[in-house]
Amino acid sequence: MCLRRDTIAHGSVCPQGSNGEYSVKYLFASVAMTLLALRLSAPIRAEDQGVPAASNVPGAQTPRIHSDRRITFSLKAPDAVSLQVAGGDGLGMSPFPMTKGTDGTWSVTTPPSVPGFHYYWFVLNGVAVNDPASETYFGYGKETSGIEVPESSADFYAILNVPHGEVRAKWYLSKTTGEWRRAFVYTPPGYDEHSTTRYPVLILQHGSGEDETGWTRQGRAQFILDNLIAAGKARPMIVVMDRGYAQRAGSPTPGSNAWLQNLHLAFTSFEEVVVHDLIPMIDASYRTIPDREHRAMAGLSMGGMQTLFITLQHLDLFAYIGSLSGPIVPNLGIADLTANRNPQTFDTKTAYGGAFADPSTFNKRVKLLWLGVGTAESDQFRTRIGGAVEALRKAGVNLEYFESSGTAHEWQTWRRDLNDFAPRLFR
Amino acid sequence: MCLRRDTIAHGSVCPQGSNGEYSVKYLFASVAMTLLALRLSAPIRAEDQGVPAASNVPGAQTPRIHSDRRITFSLKAPDAVSLQVAGGDGLGMSPFPMTKGTDGTWSVTTPPSVPGFHYYWFVLNGVAVNDPASETYFGYGKETSGIEVPESSADFYAILNVPHGEVRAKWYLSKTTGEWRRAFVYTPPGYDEHSTTRYPVLILQHGSGEDETGWTRQGRAQFILDNLIAAGKARPMIVVMDRGYAQRAGSPTPGSNAWLQNLHLAFTSFEEVVVHDLIPMIDASYRTIPDREHRAMAGLSMGGMQTLFITLQHLDLFAYIGSLSGPIVPNLGIADLTANRNPQTFDTKTAYGGAFADPSTFNKRVKLLWLGVGTAESDQFRTRIGGAVEALRKAGVNLEYFESSGTAHEWQTWRRDLNDFAPRLFR
Repeated sequence: MCLRRDTIAHGSVCPQGSNGEYSVKYLFASVAMTLLALRLSAPIRAEDQGVPAASNVPGAQTPRIHSDRRITFSLKAPDAVSLQVAGGDGLGMSPFPMTKGTDGTWSVTTPPSVPGFHYYWFVLNGVAVNDPASETYFGYGKETSGIEVPESSADFYAILNVPHGEVRAKWYLSKTTGEWRRAFVYTPPGYDEHSTTRYPVLILQHGSGEDETGWTRQGRAQFILDNLIAAGKARPMIVVMDRGYAQRAGSPTPGSNAWLQNLHLAFTSFEEVVVHDLIPMIDASYRTIPDREHRAMAGLSMGGMQTLFITLQHLDLFAYIGSLSGPIVPNLGIADLTANRNPQTFDTKTAYGGAFADPSTFNKRVKLLWLGVGTAESDQFRTRIGGAVEALRKAGVNLEYFESSGTAHEWQTWRRDLNDFAPRLFR
Repeated sequence: MCLRRDTIAHGSVCPQGSNGEYSVKYLFASVAMTLLALRLSAPIRAEDQGVPAASNVPGAQTPRIHSDRRITFSLKAPDAVSLQVAGGDGLGMSPFPMTKGTDGTWSVTTPPSVPGFHYYWFVLNGVAVNDPASETYFGYGKETSGIEVPESSADFYAILNVPHGEVRAKWYLSKTTGEWRRAFVYTPPGYDEHSTTRYPVLILQHGSGEDETGWTRQGRAQFILDNLIAAGKARPMIVVMDRGYAQRAGSPTPGSNAWLQNLHLAFTSFEEVVVHDLIPMIDASYRTIPDREHRAMAGLSMGGMQTLFITLQHLDLFAYIGSLSGPIVPNLGIADLTANRNPQTFDTKTAYGGAFADPSTFNKRVKLLWLGVGTAESDQFRTRIGGAVEALRKAGVNLEYFESSGTAHEWQTWRRDLNDFAPRLFR
């Protein structure tokens, strides 16, 4: 076995004399090349050539981002028959064909992209594969390449010279699922030093196809909180990011066509995890203020659905609620979910089990209901979320509504959402 | 843009009516399919069909591991011209050609693999790409697929029903590099509850091409420590896993052919980070016992080289030293590194700047010198490490030497190493 994948990637054979073994000599060469790559990772070309994306693996020269946010992708693939690059909304909706150069490297430069984090992948002879030059991020139910396109005027999610909290991987045994689960827990700056201070808690959930790593890797939630706290804009808080999937221990596997049953089972199973496993574990493990006035839940997309599904049934546990680009699913049962596939109206009297039926009671009990959407999201998202906002306001339900200008159903929307939402918590 | 990558992977077009947008309807379908996949992830086939690897993404049915540790890999790629699977030492040293089935899915079943974690990748029309069915792990300087092959008799790195520590992502500003760095810090079970207890510290480094994520993802160091501590076999300790690369702020970029200078600069830069940035930050941030008798350093492969390079120059800081499959580089200067490319002997009088010249003093000062290697590693590793062990013992230097039976230059060796090494610390 050659030491370096590149040796294979570039179609050559193992170096002579290596006997296929991982040798000391090639270890040295590998060390040196790795370190060299790190040194080359600084942007050294003129601006019109673009600079390597911050989401590249160390040393990778592409993708390159130009000053007008065009992006140049490339891949050396002398024997490929066809190659495209494709990706999330922010990249422009359709695959870009790549062109083969004389050295076997394919490349393309896209039109200007919107800022933010975009998933992408190559389509190599019809197979979707990741870019070896990119870090990977869990999305679409698998590891996926991602590109960070800077927003020149925004540093709220940058790692700045302010005190930083920690992100802790916390394993816990779920009675609901019978399995060990991993949650990530952000503890604010000073948590260890101020050893008697107690903190409010925000449970913050990812979207469909993503996992508990999403908010700190794609979302940069820890840096958003660090910056808000340093500026005195948000209260120091604990942020819990759990895995939004659960299956009750011993439950049967539904048939593959029973997707609605799966969806409902999964939502109720995750509800049980949050209520019976996660919250008690967090309150037992961290210095929380363990009451509803100091507990919030929010999530993006599927996580927003889950947030509304869970919090509106458990207002004894939550006083702060946020749904970030979360589809509005006005009711809670399987039949309602079915009906909701084509909802025409949002009935504030019956929606979510009647949670909003008495606006005055709701307004006293819920300290914050926050809904958000990106203006470049699809009509269905904007219409449904906007429609619910309008109906709720008309009925007298207090809420905050935030539109992220020009961003789609992706992470730049949700970063901005968190930056607006977090300062409103626990006031 | 279609919601699901699979739509593209399988060569079909976006569903009619989606208008290329990320719609609510397809979000629902995606949620349902994601959740369904999670339910299907349980091993449901007969044993001779194998079971999905624990390292697969949720729901992925391949790679499958058979009871005799043969592995079946597959990828749907109807338009591929050639497809192979290749990987690390434990997979058998050479690429396996895959065969195309009538439905366009290519597959191969390998001979029995050795247990443990193995990096692997596909070679698709000559391009090394990851398996979309696998989690990825940082190795070879990039994200790489990996497969976890169980060792039936070993549960020392399993997640068992014992108290678990946390793994904390800790950002810190390095004066040496001028940049923010991320270290992972394992705090043992009870760290928060026993709020006045202070703990010894082990600095534990990854290998070349890997990064600070290696020891907790590929290595499962946190579970090894949890299990050792629960069994009373190891003292509760803090484990610090830093990024083994550093470049001094403002230092020039050497030429690409100056690999030895790069290597030496990188080692000395990382030495400065450890001595001047990392150790003071850890002692200021965690309840450590901040003296040499309670500070250890160890590393694998390149990390072992770095450990010997750093600790033997700073015995005022370290009393415990471990080199896990670390190439023996007897001297410290650039010229010595060059000479070491073909070392014939290990001279205990001059090696490592004379650190072993007076064995009696060394034995009094160093509480543990630990060296290890896998018996299936290449001759160069075994000969060089074994030769140093023999010379040092002959000279009267106390050391522990551990051979991992049947394992190569990969993670199963280093998991076993840690399991042997950690119990010997801070006694």
